[in-house]
Amino acid sequence: MTETQTPRGVLICPMPADKDAMHAAFLAQSGDRRVYLYPELAAPDAPMAEQIGCIVAFRPPRDIFASLPHLRLLHGTGAGVNHMLAVPDLPRHLPMARVVADEVTQGMAQHCLHALLRELRDHRTYDRLQREKVWKRLPQRDAGTWPVGIMGLGALGMGLADVALRLGFAVRGWSRGEKSVPGVATFAGRDSLPDFLAGLSALVVLLPLTPETTGIVGAAELAAMAPGAVVVSAARGGQVIEADLIAALDSGHLSHAHLDVMATEPLPPESPLWTHPAITVTPHIAAAPNGPALARLVLENFARLEAGAPLLFPVDLTLGY
Amino acid sequence: MTETQTPRGVLICPMPADKDAMHAAFLAQSGDRRVYLYPELAAPDAPMAEQIGCIVAFRPPRDIFASLPHLRLLHGTGAGVNHMLAVPDLPRHLPMARVVADEVTQGMAQHCLHALLRELRDHRTYDRLQREKVWKRLPQRDAGTWPVGIMGLGALGMGLADVALRLGFAVRGWSRGEKSVPGVATFAGRDSLPDFLAGLSALVVLLPLTPETTGIVGAAELAAMAPGAVVVSAARGGQVIEADLIAALDSGHLSHAHLDVMATEPLPPESPLWTHPAITVTPHIAAAPNGPALARLVLENFARLEAGAPLLFPVDLTLGY
Repeated sequence: MTETQTPRGVLICPMPADKDAMHAAFLAQSGDRRVYLYPELAAPDAPMAEQIGCIVAFRPPRDIFASLPHLRLLHGTGAGVNHMLAVPDLPRHLPMARVVADEVTQGMAQHCLHALLRELRDHRTYDRLQREKVWKRLPQRDAGTWPVGIMGLGALGMGLADVALRLGFAVRGWSRGEKSVPGVATFAGRDSLPDFLAGLSALVVLLPLTPETTGIVGAAELAAMAPGAVVVSAARGGQVIEADLIAALDSGHLSHAHLDVMATEPLPPESPLWTHPAITVTPHIAAAPNGPALARLVLENFARLEAGAPLLFPVDLTLGY
Repeated sequence: MTETQTPRGVLICPMPADKDAMHAAFLAQSGDRRVYLYPELAAPDAPMAEQIGCIVAFRPPRDIFASLPHLRLLHGTGAGVNHMLAVPDLPRHLPMARVVADEVTQGMAQHCLHALLRELRDHRTYDRLQREKVWKRLPQRDAGTWPVGIMGLGALGMGLADVALRLGFAVRGWSRGEKSVPGVATFAGRDSLPDFLAGLSALVVLLPLTPETTGIVGAAELAAMAPGAVVVSAARGGQVIEADLIAALDSGHLSHAHLDVMATEPLPPESPLWTHPAITVTPHIAAAPNGPALARLVLENFARLEAGAPLLFPVDLTLGY
């Protein structure tokens, strides 16, 4: 294969809801690079498989790799890549990258803050009072004495911490390794988890899903939080043990949970999470891939690969993210 | 009256829901200064009226001033003082101050962001989808192309703008006089109102209520906004013309309004605002007086008055705030 035949095409595998916006975003930025949309492989310019040097996917389609002989880069669509890494025939020797972008960080902060403010400010109760036509002010909790604990102090956790501090929240942060964040009480490592959790009014889970973080929030962790505390789970469903969460809500120890991620997605109709009165379910929308930001990063990374420059936000297989 | 007889007592007139917390907050910080709680005037140490040098109230009780011969300072409980200024027998020659405090600014930003995020992120629709057990992702609006216009660039407006920018919102600001705010497209004066409003996705009203701002948001202003736009009214009810707002919601031009303030408060049971499907009502809770912060500022201002130092956040009667 000569220099000019080096495959420069990008195959994007978007979620159905994002398909058109994602395709348009890549086309708008791709210049002379070809962009292919999965599963519409039967394009007029087939055999396109020969042309593809990069695949972009949250969870790459099963068995697609056998048909992409010239793949050089695997790119995730968001901050987490556990679904990509779990694909059995993934060519793990290839360079991989995940997405860290202001738009994704901001989207996650938007989602988590909405949930935190809804609970801090009693908006679920005020919605009920409106239905009852009752004008009644509830005692206002002070954000400064309502500690929020953020598990995971990567780009997403730091972005949330920054805005939460500006809104007056007392913020704690927990991470695998030591981190120092101005204004945030930080805790590192598994041994510090009890101290981090003790008396928290809200827990926000923003960790990558790895063997270490699977099931990291269970009965003991929830019991350590303050009575009436809230859980916001927005990273991966495998981190909060759902049966333990339901038990803690049913006992009244926790007051509410906002779940954007679940052990099984899409959440099956028979799941008790849908109808639990103390659970708000959203369909994994916290930090939806932002088409323009994703396209910009993927195309930048592919150009870096071609130029022999280091990738932005490479995946470390030993850490699992 | 000798030096030692100068009245140093503070009379606080809290809302019923805040009464105990407010009293406790003042007692905790008052040192040797006496704190009196209205209407419990019949204290063991009566005649306390002689002792009162400062009154703290959102809306001072009618006819109270005749019984307070030694009043030297009138202090509001929040950012807005229009209710205080409207009391007929208010001793307008006395120094007056309003409350600008991080806690109040943060409370207002919390309230407005909750409303903005709820709309930007379609949470009302997701709540419905949960009730229907439907896992469906809606196309995600990009905050950067969903312009939010903030009317009023005092402490409250600036505090909201700061956090909204960090969350990725495109932010415009409108104020009486020229202001320059990094990252915010600013507009000044009545003539610029159409340009400020044109195509806004969300309008947040945080103005003081004065003759100039009464009814400032009516049919023409709402019509200038983008189809599907949202109104967040969180300052005073007199600023948004309610009949025009309802008409703009009923026509489908606006998608939703979050009203924390209304022309008549408490909102009477017969008001159509309670049951309008596109209106969320909260009972004037956006920036509830925070007891400790209020007590700190009032006591600081009273000490400044006694020392002959300028007040913090004095009221300008010619501006009306």
